[in-house]
Amino acid sequence: MAALPTEDDIASMDAADPLLPLREQFLRAEGEVYLDGNSLGMASGAALDALRLAAREEWTRGLIRSWNTAGWFDLPVELGDRIGRLIGAASGQVVVADTTSINIYKALHAAIGLRPGRNVIVAEAGSFPTDLYIAEGVISTLPGVTMRLEGRDADRIEDLLDQDVAAVLVNHVNYKTGALRDMAALTRAIHDAGAVAIWDLCHSAGALPVALDAAGADFAVGCTYKYLNGGPGSPAFIYVAARHLAEARQPLSGWWGHARPFAFETGFDGDPGIRRFQCGTQPILSLRALQGALEIWDEVDMHRLREKSVALTELFIRLVEGLCAGHGLVLESPRDPALRGSQVAFAHDHAYEIMQALIERGVIGDFRAPSTLRFGFTPLYLSHADVAHAARVLADVLESGLWREPRFAVRGAVT
Amino acid sequence: MAALPTEDDIASMDAADPLLPLREQFLRAEGEVYLDGNSLGMASGAALDALRLAAREEWTRGLIRSWNTAGWFDLPVELGDRIGRLIGAASGQVVVADTTSINIYKALHAAIGLRPGRNVIVAEAGSFPTDLYIAEGVISTLPGVTMRLEGRDADRIEDLLDQDVAAVLVNHVNYKTGALRDMAALTRAIHDAGAVAIWDLCHSAGALPVALDAAGADFAVGCTYKYLNGGPGSPAFIYVAARHLAEARQPLSGWWGHARPFAFETGFDGDPGIRRFQCGTQPILSLRALQGALEIWDEVDMHRLREKSVALTELFIRLVEGLCAGHGLVLESPRDPALRGSQVAFAHDHAYEIMQALIERGVIGDFRAPSTLRFGFTPLYLSHADVAHAARVLADVLESGLWREPRFAVRGAVT
Repeated sequence: MAALPTEDDIASMDAADPLLPLREQFLRAEGEVYLDGNSLGMASGAALDALRLAAREEWTRGLIRSWNTAGWFDLPVELGDRIGRLIGAASGQVVVADTTSINIYKALHAAIGLRPGRNVIVAEAGSFPTDLYIAEGVISTLPGVTMRLEGRDADRIEDLLDQDVAAVLVNHVNYKTGALRDMAALTRAIHDAGAVAIWDLCHSAGALPVALDAAGADFAVGCTYKYLNGGPGSPAFIYVAARHLAEARQPLSGWWGHARPFAFETGFDGDPGIRRFQCGTQPILSLRALQGALEIWDEVDMHRLREKSVALTELFIRLVEGLCAGHGLVLESPRDPALRGSQVAFAHDHAYEIMQALIERGVIGDFRAPSTLRFGFTPLYLSHADVAHAARVLADVLESGLWREPRFAVRGAVT
Repeated sequence: MAALPTEDDIASMDAADPLLPLREQFLRAEGEVYLDGNSLGMASGAALDALRLAAREEWTRGLIRSWNTAGWFDLPVELGDRIGRLIGAASGQVVVADTTSINIYKALHAAIGLRPGRNVIVAEAGSFPTDLYIAEGVISTLPGVTMRLEGRDADRIEDLLDQDVAAVLVNHVNYKTGALRDMAALTRAIHDAGAVAIWDLCHSAGALPVALDAAGADFAVGCTYKYLNGGPGSPAFIYVAARHLAEARQPLSGWWGHARPFAFETGFDGDPGIRRFQCGTQPILSLRALQGALEIWDEVDMHRLREKSVALTELFIRLVEGLCAGHGLVLESPRDPALRGSQVAFAHDHAYEIMQALIERGVIGDFRAPSTLRFGFTPLYLSHADVAHAARVLADVLESGLWREPRFAVRGAVT
């Protein structure tokens, strides 16, 4: 086995990192390494500035006039286009609105509507659960529609596809293991079966290059509070391929989806474009924080971002496996970086307690039941030195047995 | 006709107003009278402070830990209970989540589910339009369900009720005219017909006493950015009467509605209480601003609030009709204050231009197509002197013909 990288090697990696200066735009805490940006991204100065301006000027002074003068009304489509540039979507196909769960509901209804006579939704048993819960909700309103799950009814999505399948709802990057799908290949297989592909980008938007248009994706959804750093619970986005906009319908047909929302007409006449996938009034303060957070992306090349992401996860795996050998950690993420998103998961029987001990020592990751230590690597604000420090702290927590202290076994409401 | 109140009379009204000191808690602009709190309420110092704390401390420093340590996870039910106290709902029946439109969707689905074999939704042709648009969306997913409208199919909701009606969706206060319904009496009539009552409280929550439990209401929805001053687009609320919680189901069954959201189970098992009417992650920054905004209500007696609201609208009508006679204004709101919410509407053929001229003169109301000048009266931050000033400016705009200047005819995107 090759020697592990030295402090000097790590310093050289940081010195050669073209994205390193970007971390200065974030409000990082001294003495902490934050590896949970895949759950909630960090605040940037630009996000906080935009929020303060929205609160102190637009709301406080502008009041109702700000719907026009501050451009609040168009914010969902404007931010949608900005996010579109990061996920390979040409203008007019993405809107920021509501939550990922609600956008999955819209996309599933629209997708099933595009495939009359077909009555099966395919999803993944290992999906982030809300995708499955929402599919259940859609099914509850559409008698005869059923669900097939990869990991329960067959090993591979491809083996579940036939002429009954209307829609396939699939995560681009698995929330737990970080496994990355080949979007273009799977979309092709889905289309070959005559079905519609809905991609959940929660763990890939802002984490790696996504090419929705090029892959021929039909719909996509995703959240903005992970790698896009929009702030806690910032609104989600939905993508509808331009070729579907004329025909696709979703039942959350609120006034923001109307072609003329301020004409106050009695009947619903949906906007001909992506605005039809809006429903009601959005939380403007949270949208403004997201807008500020998105500014940094003008300076980021997504392929550079991916290179750094791979370098960080490779470094972490190498150091952890080198420094923590014999302590029972098992890599749950794909070892091949080409098959992995920007996160790394290790299984351990005492994952919960180990993570609590890590957090106390200033290394912030998270735990996913029943036995996963999950570490997210946001290339915008992490250095190679951060990653090396995190691996050394993990080794120390295991070596010293710190995690066995009883206080780390107390479970909080949200873990 | 009795003489109009003098400056001294107005000053006496303010001197006798027990709520007047509360206005100091809001960030009012000098020289403006804001009569659009029924569209977007004013910012209070407490709302801005709570927002800043959430951004600078909870997000920036606490990061992912704030879900536990700052109580983010329980915020929707905590704020729901606070709003519940203002709308006559005992604890555990209200949750803050999503938008009014989305909550109407949930309530309609749940209501129809409670009345198997019935297939009609009754609503109002004069409803705020999103209620009707959402009802259309619900109908699009439930073959056989149809809609009957008061104002189109009959003059009164009571005349539309029969054994086919599952749910009645009705606005407590009309968004345009301010007409106020008798909630207890209409709920009784709806129940007598075997149907379920869904009340839209957008224009009554925080504007006047609401007694959902006492009236026997089944469901209610409402927004928090009007009289509750939660900030632009702050999340909405939904009320489900405790007696329905065991049985009522809504199809937006996202992970926040699960009994154990962090167990990451494959199947949906809804929370037994009001949390089941949540769906996905909420915009925490906007929720915190709302939380700050709600603090003031601990000091407010809702019956005192109503007394002041009636005094303000009575004063405005009396002054406008006295000072603007002969200029073509026609009162659209009920003249009897017992039948009116906290707003006043006048029709005029040139309502749009007149409103633009008023806004230029610092009197902020709004226009509703085709011909309504709409004025909202938030008792928390308006004085009787404000109202008298607004009436005098309106008289001056009409008398001088200021509104005829061409610049007032230019229409903005949102009017």
